[in-house]
Amino acid sequence: MNSNSAGSVVERRKVVLERLRRLGEEIYEQLDKGIFPSIEMPSRSIENIYYDTKLRQYVLGDKRVRRSVRNIRHLRSFTQLIWAALFSYELTSQRKTSTLRDVYYSAQAYEMSFKDQQESNNIITDLETVLGFSREDFNIFPEERSAVFGDLTIRYTVPGYEGKTLNLTSHPDGVMIGPALTSAEFVETSADKVIAIEKGGLFTRFIEENVHKRFNAILVLTAGQAPRATRHFIRRLNRELKLPVYIFTDGDPWGMHIAMVIISGSANAAHLRDLTTPDAKWSGVWATDIVNYKLPTDPLDEIDIKRLYELQRDPRYQNDPLWQREINTFLKIRRKAEQEAFSRYGLTYIVDEYLPAKLEQTK
Amino acid sequence: MNSNSAGSVVERRKVVLERLRRLGEEIYEQLDKGIFPSIEMPSRSIENIYYDTKLRQYVLGDKRVRRSVRNIRHLRSFTQLIWAALFSYELTSQRKTSTLRDVYYSAQAYEMSFKDQQESNNIITDLETVLGFSREDFNIFPEERSAVFGDLTIRYTVPGYEGKTLNLTSHPDGVMIGPALTSAEFVETSADKVIAIEKGGLFTRFIEENVHKRFNAILVLTAGQAPRATRHFIRRLNRELKLPVYIFTDGDPWGMHIAMVIISGSANAAHLRDLTTPDAKWSGVWATDIVNYKLPTDPLDEIDIKRLYELQRDPRYQNDPLWQREINTFLKIRRKAEQEAFSRYGLTYIVDEYLPAKLEQTK
Repeated sequence: MNSNSAGSVVERRKVVLERLRRLGEEIYEQLDKGIFPSIEMPSRSIENIYYDTKLRQYVLGDKRVRRSVRNIRHLRSFTQLIWAALFSYELTSQRKTSTLRDVYYSAQAYEMSFKDQQESNNIITDLETVLGFSREDFNIFPEERSAVFGDLTIRYTVPGYEGKTLNLTSHPDGVMIGPALTSAEFVETSADKVIAIEKGGLFTRFIEENVHKRFNAILVLTAGQAPRATRHFIRRLNRELKLPVYIFTDGDPWGMHIAMVIISGSANAAHLRDLTTPDAKWSGVWATDIVNYKLPTDPLDEIDIKRLYELQRDPRYQNDPLWQREINTFLKIRRKAEQEAFSRYGLTYIVDEYLPAKLEQTK
Repeated sequence: MNSNSAGSVVERRKVVLERLRRLGEEIYEQLDKGIFPSIEMPSRSIENIYYDTKLRQYVLGDKRVRRSVRNIRHLRSFTQLIWAALFSYELTSQRKTSTLRDVYYSAQAYEMSFKDQQESNNIITDLETVLGFSREDFNIFPEERSAVFGDLTIRYTVPGYEGKTLNLTSHPDGVMIGPALTSAEFVETSADKVIAIEKGGLFTRFIEENVHKRFNAILVLTAGQAPRATRHFIRRLNRELKLPVYIFTDGDPWGMHIAMVIISGSANAAHLRDLTTPDAKWSGVWATDIVNYKLPTDPLDEIDIKRLYELQRDPRYQNDPLWQREINTFLKIRRKAEQEAFSRYGLTYIVDEYLPAKLEQTK
């Protein structure tokens, strides 16, 4: 299958640079008119965050805030925001990437001061809100890395690799999902689905058992909670290549929530739209799987139970009766199970029996 | 440069299988002779662990223990050990990999019971001790994954990829260090050194700034404490390709110890020989770098200080006056600094100025 994404990644970078340039021009225009420069953006305060049942993610409401240099209390954060825009423009146009930690220290090279990491992180989130793009789009990447393996040919857009292609089955341990992969174009795939997996050991087992061939799947390792770049990558596989996404995690509230964050995102990304995959399915390990497959279990800890009650009230878990049924089953059986628990039936049972049954069940 | 390693990885697997087979034969021979089977191995108790200043790692002393089925208290662990040998033989001969977690659950498929994960982990360590090979050699791998990037061509030995080659510059985010990479043969490299880096963000920066070309280096991401498979891989780069190894970590006791574990290993691997790189250098961030480069710092926490006093007494830190000087400097300045702190002089300062200076200084 051929994707029609060619050019879209490069287009996207142009749009981001254009928005950043426009932001600077607006400040200059205000100065030219002799008025105090100000920036308006949607409010990210808790009372302005809503769960949108149609988009199936958190969004910001209509409340807006204005930051103006006329207000002496805004002067500091306004200046920091403009610096962050300048720094992001430099990164993106020079095609260099950075991390939140790096931004914090880099500020000192410009004699711009942040009192701590939290303050600089907040300013980057402000910039995301103003631009409507996530920080990865202006080249600020997470520290964490996850991985991918499967029959997908990509074409790089990063300096030194422009136009080069790689098939993602080239290295049977998987390749890292970093800035180069995230900004690559999708050229061609024979896959008809994506399987996301929480743990490295199982990711390797799936590759060794040829899950990519037997199930025509692209395998994504989330390595615990999926980093934002990985969530964006999964969304692109779903949107651009029209591939359904199945998520396999441990059978406990934390695994369940790893799946939910890939599907519906988090409240603190309510200002962004490109990090969710609402049609992705949590395919297991369900609480009901623990019962049906008679898996070896551990008892739920107090903190697991507390978390289940939180998730029960979470609007993201209200959409689909599946989630409530599984939460209730966890609370009833008071047990949890890891993905590796299937090895009690032999190392390949999870691939030979469980995986096909669950793919069918959650189709 | 061509490596002479061809065949060595395949040879190694043959030796491991031969040792496992021999272990089984010894049990049968004892049974045939009508005597209670027993297995002898070096003791791993604390009083039998010594630091060997010549090997520059912990080793086991002469004390040995015998586990015999004549002793009813040994019956359980003896049986578990024989099962672990059987399971490892199956894994290695079928070319499948597993994790410690998987071993624990797999036992149930054989009606072999372990009371908890710790008990099965201990039995795997017993098997390492008996065989003199680390568990990765009989295909039990860590859950964690790190990554590598640089001009090294490898030839795979894993099923489905036998004979295929990959150059490790193929993917500019880096490729994962898993079972396939660990068991690959080294074919060719133009690199003349290895640079190991603690953090993902800096690993990406080094790639973007062409450190691999400018400094002829293979770049290894340790992602915090290097997983055992990564430590073994670094050792192979050093031994088989004769490449010097330079390690860059955060400037704090934890970063210092990441370097030390790559160099001299840990006390609980005293029964193994293939996980250390005694000639590797810790190149920074030193406490004296914090002073000399006037880096932005954070104060040492109480737990950092406690750790420094522990390291001061640790025999691994007695070898080289560098370590004691740096520990003393940390204790004097009571500050620590992250690798990213160099960004205060601009994003590329660490590559343009710091890296070449430190490579020269620790040559």
